[in-house]
Amino acid sequence: MNNYVAVIEYDGSNYKGFQYQPGKIKTIQDELQKALSILLGKESFGGFSYSGRTDTGVHAKYQVINFKTDKFLDLYKFKWQLNCLLPEDIVTKDIRLTDEPFDSRKDAKLREYSYFVVNNDFQSAFLKKYSLLVTKRLDVQMMRKAAEMFVGTFDFRSFCSGNFGSGSTIRRIYSFRIRCFSDGLIVFKITASSFLYNMVRIIVGTVLEVGRGKRNLESIDKALKGASRRLAGKIVPAKGLFLTKVIY
Amino acid sequence: MNNYVAVIEYDGSNYKGFQYQPGKIKTIQDELQKALSILLGKESFGGFSYSGRTDTGVHAKYQVINFKTDKFLDLYKFKWQLNCLLPEDIVTKDIRLTDEPFDSRKDAKLREYSYFVVNNDFQSAFLKKYSLLVTKRLDVQMMRKAAEMFVGTFDFRSFCSGNFGSGSTIRRIYSFRIRCFSDGLIVFKITASSFLYNMVRIIVGTVLEVGRGKRNLESIDKALKGASRRLAGKIVPAKGLFLTKVIY
Repeated sequence: MNNYVAVIEYDGSNYKGFQYQPGKIKTIQDELQKALSILLGKESFGGFSYSGRTDTGVHAKYQVINFKTDKFLDLYKFKWQLNCLLPEDIVTKDIRLTDEPFDSRKDAKLREYSYFVVNNDFQSAFLKKYSLLVTKRLDVQMMRKAAEMFVGTFDFRSFCSGNFGSGSTIRRIYSFRIRCFSDGLIVFKITASSFLYNMVRIIVGTVLEVGRGKRNLESIDKALKGASRRLAGKIVPAKGLFLTKVIY
Repeated sequence: MNNYVAVIEYDGSNYKGFQYQPGKIKTIQDELQKALSILLGKESFGGFSYSGRTDTGVHAKYQVINFKTDKFLDLYKFKWQLNCLLPEDIVTKDIRLTDEPFDSRKDAKLREYSYFVVNNDFQSAFLKKYSLLVTKRLDVQMMRKAAEMFVGTFDFRSFCSGNFGSGSTIRRIYSFRIRCFSDGLIVFKITASSFLYNMVRIIVGTVLEVGRGKRNLESIDKALKGASRRLAGKIVPAKGLFLTKVIY
């Protein structure tokens, strides 16, 4: 079997997340599955793996999928055809042949997410679908201090939604950077091997509370030790979140 | 009278250009006029000047307007109210009091336009409303040579649409730069005191023909000397064009 790996970009605004859902619910996986089935034929295409699901309204600059087929593909032509079949807000950026055992989910070493905040007294006409507007002036130096506290291995139970039962909530964050751009744009970039449900959005929400002066650094220490959702900050909206890199 | 100057940003996708048109045609000027009339009252607000009209579908990161009123405005509050009244795709970025004789159109020394091209085999999910996709690999070095030829004072009759009658078609281009970014994004940045109708879009279209290898540098020389629209290249679509700066 030939194993093909592809990099996908999508504007998640009009989708109920990446993962397939029963019923007539529009998801990224659904659109990819439909287009790939048409091109490969149902006999020679079983489905695909992906580096990580993204939630309703979350975007991706770099989602990785892989699929196996007995066909040999003309990569340039196949990519072109796939992009013709996909809706305009989902795009195949790259496709190539890889080793047979490669799996885009299991082999992913690091995942990087970026969160866009516009810190200004007005929302940009161009970024409104892709960022959270914060009108109160944020203290970036304090937010950077807060961000540093998340780097390392912790039990992130305070920073996830839902009930995890017996699953481990311990994760390691490799880096967490905050960069400022023109017109008040602030980008939060966070890298880990994997994330818990809503973890990035709750961490960013908590750091923003530090930036607003509503929360001190000590409270982050407590939330990291306390293992209780109410110790962390409010979750930020999905529209500002992008999956921006997967490293293998 | 108090003279206020404001910087406006807009996504032009859903508008028939900046300038007011008779009938129920949606323009940027119309939306600004409505919002300003509500806030200032019809008695103390006659209208406003603006640095330059943009055509149907053209965007602005930096359009400058000014208006006179006998009222003294609380600038922070007024800007907030104006942004609340304007549609989401038109935004007031800045507003301040200026000298009484200042006029945003007459006093503009330089206008900078930027044109976005995605040179790749697929269109970006995020830039599709704001850029032209060119799938053929462009020769950026040749395009830069072509761009240099436009810098200076020329009769740009070959590079404008419509009949200008006795109006002068001589303009001076101060700079014309081409910068490359990730994922195939190429930005053309062109500065002049003023531009003829469709001039930026025809110049960019002509330079792209050089980049595609369809046109040589000599032909640009001929077009600059020849004063005939058919000597220049095809016009590029409005959606990739942004008014990005006005200098006074």
